[in-house]
Order: sequence, then structure tokens, then C-alpha cells
Amino acid sequence: MKIIRFLSEDDRVLTGVFDTKTPDVSRVIEGDIFTDIAVTEKWEKIKTILPPLAPVNILCLGLNYKEHAAETKVTSPESPVLFLKGTNSVVGPGSPIVLPRVAPDEVDYEAELAVIIGNKVRNISADDARNSIFGYTCANDVSARDWQIFKQKGQWARGKSFDTFCPLGPYVVTADEIEDPDSLPIRAILNDRVMQDSNTSNMIFDVSAIVSDLSQSMTLYPGTLILTGTPEGVGFTREPPVFLKDGDIITIEIEGIGRLVNPVRQEGNKR
Amino acid sequence: MKIIRFLSEDDRVLTGVFDTKTPDVSRVIEGDIFTDIAVTEKWEKIKTILPPLAPVNILCLGLNYKEHAAETKVTSPESPVLFLKGTNSVVGPGSPIVLPRVAPDEVDYEAELAVIIGNKVRNISADDARNSIFGYTCANDVSARDWQIFKQKGQWARGKSFDTFCPLGPYVVTADEIEDPDSLPIRAILNDRVMQDSNTSNMIFDVSAIVSDLSQSMTLYPGTLILTGTPEGVGFTREPPVFLKDGDIITIEIEGIGRLVNPVRQEGNKR
Repeated sequence: MKIIRFLSEDDRVLTGVFDTKTPDVSRVIEGDIFTDIAVTEKWEKIKTILPPLAPVNILCLGLNYKEHAAETKVTSPESPVLFLKGTNSVVGPGSPIVLPRVAPDEVDYEAELAVIIGNKVRNISADDARNSIFGYTCANDVSARDWQIFKQKGQWARGKSFDTFCPLGPYVVTADEIEDPDSLPIRAILNDRVMQDSNTSNMIFDVSAIVSDLSQSMTLYPGTLILTGTPEGVGFTREPPVFLKDGDIITIEIEGIGRLVNPVRQEGNKR
Repeated sequence: MKIIRFLSEDDRVLTGVFDTKTPDVSRVIEGDIFTDIAVTEKWEKIKTILPPLAPVNILCLGLNYKEHAAETKVTSPESPVLFLKGTNSVVGPGSPIVLPRVAPDEVDYEAELAVIIGNKVRNISADDARNSIFGYTCANDVSARDWQIFKQKGQWARGKSFDTFCPLGPYVVTADEIEDPDSLPIRAILNDRVMQDSNTSNMIFDVSAIVSDLSQSMTLYPGTLILTGTPEGVGFTREPPVFLKDGDIITIEIEGIGRLVNPVRQEGNKR
């Protein structure tokens, strides 16, 4: 099942089932999707698609693809490296990524498979980890490289937590539809140019290992979002570097999960 | 006004007004404390005091006291350095800080003044910043130094986001009661020994500067918690280093704000 959140014509925030054959309407889901999900017979027109969930925490893996670690000249980590993004950074498909007035020049894309936790877990084994996963979506771990790397004593959080820096969507694909999250082609496409083109099979720590490892240090609550890291091909390591600019369109595409498209605009510019 | 969250005798989660003269009962508050707070005439017995709020994001300042930056051998930052703690880490007064099975040896305390945002703000000036503040509480930014500094490629998030690593409380003191948040004596006391003894006047960036600066990069929503940094005297920079151990009692005390006391125990140990 593909689950969206959307605004109805009368501006209610609803959850619904998405069908690519009927993209303008959605069957309404009632109840909490993690505890008492109920698919109704009601249909509503979709006015605006929202981010598919409001995460309770955004846990992110750094350096989880060997070739990406290499391009950033960092050795691969021995255990999953965690950082967090502020939940303020979430936007949905089609919403602009806004280049901040205070950090307009080095904003970069990162294609990532996002895992959504459905059951509260702590100290779960890798063998059991898949049972805690509600679903998957596409994420773009947008990063202002100057703030991430140079302006914050090396702490990544701020450069990755500007408003609009966590596009998600277009929908959550429930776990039952994804046989193997560790073998999905993943791409970032800037305008018409393929910038990242890899496969989640290249992750250093696979989905089960990540969930298990994180659960050894923190309780994962339903609605926790885990960004599993990005492959090689980001903008700032290129010669010359490529950064997002006003008017760009950036697409994250994961086979079986979906296609997340966001325009880019400069803060203050209307379009 | 002093605001607590608590469990009633029949295990409902309630919000209430705390009066030190009647510590076993509380006048019930109804409505959202940020939008439509209503103090009722109902009284309820307090069974357990909970963390005074469930923050939407925990934004933390690093290195915001000059003498603390110096003791960690880092130069003072030119602008506020941000990191995030996972919201899973929050516990209330009296709840144990649990030394994690995977990180038991280098767990440290950090006394911090915590600011609670009450109004949604973005790009607020330092002059207006105080108007966005709902209240204040005491925080202990508990940190597993081995994970914070060495095991995560220098990213602080994981070593500071273990479950129970963000004690808060005992209550929120509303902003109208605090004339000047930038001149409050602040202390950490380990068992009976004063370990940190400073004043918020020693912060490099004061409360208004912090709120204004963060609001230039992210929207601060009601319920956002900001930890304003810790003064000198933490455990890991001492010779020999002092770390929390099973059976310790750690107290964070801020004059005018309150006294937050938490016992320490090893994961797996019952007491």
C-alpha cells in the first residue's frame, strides 16, 4: 500500500491510500497508521500532497556508502555514524527547497532511502529488525556544505537542519511491498542530469544492521524516520563543485519506492 | 507560574500548576499550554512527576561558556554551534539516568539552562527574541564521552542521545517570573560535591542571541527546547576524570528555576 498525507479541498489534513491510476483522489485512512490503521470507503479530492509523515525524530546515517566516504576523503566508519536533522526541515513532494538567505551558496543534494519505524523497539536484533519497519520513502538529505563542514566546529546538524532541507515522499510504501530494501537502485537527478546512480546494496550497513544498531542506544518509537545514507556523486566533491541554485529541479528516485521531485528557489524569491 | 506534567493516581497524564507548599497535589491545567492554557479549579494528587514537556526538537548549543570551551581545548565559536539530541532521551526529575550497556564507562553530566519556545518564530531579532520564550527549566545534557568524541567520526549526536540522557525539570518556570535569564547562578552537584558552579552571565551567546541566531536557519515551533550550553567543571576534563557511576545522585540547580535531581544506575541493575 502507498500512503500519503494530503490537504483536502476544504483544507483538512488527511491520510489516504495513493493509487497512481487515480492521482487526484485518495481513499481516506482513519486512525493512527501505526496502531489502528483503518482504510475506509470514503474518497477525497487531493488539493496538495503533504510530507507523508511528521517524524518524531530524524535519525541519519553518515558515510554509509563506501564510495561516498571515499569521495569525501573520510575512511569508512566501523559502526553506523549518527547525526540528527531537526523535524522543522521536513517538506513534501513538489515543495520548494529554499536556499537560505544566510547559507545560499553551497546547498547540496543527497539521495537516501528512508525507513519508517512502526513499532517501539529497543535492543532489537538484526534478525528481528525488519519486523519493526512500517515502510519506506524517498528522502533528500539537503546540506549546506559551508555550514555543515566549516562553520559549526565540524558538527553537521545545523547545515542539514535548515527549513525545507528534508524533502520526503511522495508516499510511504508499506514494508510488505518491499521484498528486499537492500537491493534497490537509487538515483539523484539534477534537472536532466543523473548525479547519483547507485544501489542500496552498496550500503556499508544494511537496513537491518542500522535499525538493530541504533536500537542498542536509543528507543525507536513509531514514526521515527531513519535516513540510511547517500551514495557517491554529491555536488560538493565534484570538480568543479555543483550546488543547487534558484530554478533547479532535483529528483530522488528509488525503484519500487517512488520519485520525489522538488524545485529549488532562493529565500525571498517568488515563483 | 510553575508548570509540571504528572501522572494522576489513576494514571492519566496531566498538566498542572506546581506549588512548593503543596508538593503532593496540583491544580489541573487544561488546553494546550502554548495556545489556550486554562488553569482550572480542579486539584489532583500527583503520583509521579513526568518531564515538564515533550519537546518537538531538542536544539543544543556547544561550547557556549568560554571556560568550558577552554577546558575542552577548543577555541570559542564565532557563532552558536548547534547539535541535536533525540527526543527519546528525555526523562523527568527523579528518573534514573541509565548508563547504557554499550557505553557504561564515560558518562558525564552537563548543567544547562533550557529555554522553551512558546510562539512559532523565524528570523526573529535579538530584541524581540524574549517574546517568543514560554519558559525555562533545568536540563542535564548527559553525554557518553567515548561515543561523543571518538566513536562517531566526531559527531556528538549519538553520545548525547542515549535513552535517559536528557533529564528535564522539575517544572517549567514561565518567562514572566524570570526577569533576566542571563544572570542566574547555575551548578551541578555530584552526590555532595559541587562540580560546576557558574552563572548564565558567563555564556558567550546570551539567551536572546541564541534564539535569534537559531531562528535565522530554522523555524522554532512551540515546544522547541533549547539547551544553552554548559559551564566549566564537567567530569571528563578533570585529572583524574570523573564519570557517573551506578548509585550516584546528580543535581542540576539554577537559581530561580529549580533543582533537578536524578539517580544514576547501570543498565540491567535494579534498585
